Amino acid sequence: MGIFVTFEGMECCGKSTQLHLLARWLRERGHDAIETREPGGTDIGESIRELLRSGNVSGTFSSRAEILLFEASRAQHMEEKILPAIAAGKIVLCDRFHDSTTVYQGVARAVDADAVSFLNGFASHGRVPDMTILLDIGVRESFRRMDARGAIRDRIESEDENFFQKVRDGYRMLAEDVRFFTVDGMSSIAEIHGKIRDEFARRFF
Amino acid sequence: MGIFVTFEGMECCGKSTQLHLLARWLRERGHDAIETREPGGTDIGESIRELLRSGNVSGTFSSRAEILLFEASRAQHMEEKILPAIAAGKIVLCDRFHDSTTVYQGVARAVDADAVSFLNGFASHGRVPDMTILLDIGVRESFRRMDARGAIRDRIESEDENFFQKVRDGYRMLAEDVRFFTVDGMSSIAEIHGKIRDEFARRFF
Repeated sequence: MGIFVTFEGMECCGKSTQLHLLARWLRERGHDAIETREPGGTDIGESIRELLRSGNVSGTFSSRAEILLFEASRAQHMEEKILPAIAAGKIVLCDRFHDSTTVYQGVARAVDADAVSFLNGFASHGRVPDMTILLDIGVRESFRRMDARGAIRDRIESEDENFFQKVRDGYRMLAEDVRFFTVDGMSSIAEIHGKIRDEFARRFF
Repeated sequence: MGIFVTFEGMECCGKSTQLHLLARWLRERGHDAIETREPGGTDIGESIRELLRSGNVSGTFSSRAEILLFEASRAQHMEEKILPAIAAGKIVLCDRFHDSTTVYQGVARAVDADAVSFLNGFASHGRVPDMTILLDIGVRESFRRMDARGAIRDRIESEDENFFQKVRDGYRMLAEDVRFFTVDGMSSIAEIHGKIRDEFARRFF
């Protein structure tokens, strides 16, 4: 059986960069590492991602429709890609997973916690990540980095400071669980990578 | 408070025709009747409908992803359109609703019944239709009408006879409930409309 690792954190916290560095390091050591992301990860999932990010759709997403779309993308991702890869002994590195739904839709949008928990379990077939890496940065730093990036913010990135403060608080609450490894996202890229690498080796090698 | 009526049945059973005739009759009597459908009914829902019908997306839909997409369309439809219309005292006529999910995804695709029930309740905010009209036709008749129509069958319409037999059996099981009014879909359009009109008047006027 393979290993399933997820990366979580605020917008522009460095998830994708660190996920890619860990994948490269694992490959250099001869492991079969897969890089994937949510929402998306499959053709059907990427179509759902487009729909979710779009500010072009007329009408505002109801919070229940939004969470159901994220879970649809997850169910497809899980059955088509993640579960088969784990079964084949691969190391799956996923940029965002069910914890994102718990904090963005559950905590920040106040969707009922029992419903979020049921939906997360249904879509993921009850498979919890073996390790979740949280890159912790503050709301102001996240906003500063989104501005520096220059790109237009998508629908969710356009939420206000209050929304993202709830997201951050939600993550810090979840991170009490031993499944999590929290790294200070203000450190240098190399320093963060070193910590993640060491913790990964400590847990799995 | 308004009235919420849903139309159910196999492909080409005459749902849309009868829904439209009932709406016209209600308007002639001075009622504010809204015609809508699932999946769809809103801009976001119609985008989901396109995704669901498409045979162009590479990859096969996982049955959990499929049901979650139907429920996402439903949640949006419910909050944006159906609940406000009912609250405004209108009569909402909807072509397919949660019973379709129960029989197509629950019975025919064998998604766990408790999960289907939870998802239907979550997406519809627990609002059950006041009356559901089932136009009953057999599988062979449904296939004959799809062929006669000439259009290319969409993804779900392309399922086999065994799938649609389960759909029909599922509907007949559900129709034991008093919420349902079952009409023989083999009768003439005018005859069916007459029965639906009479039953509607009997229940609500």
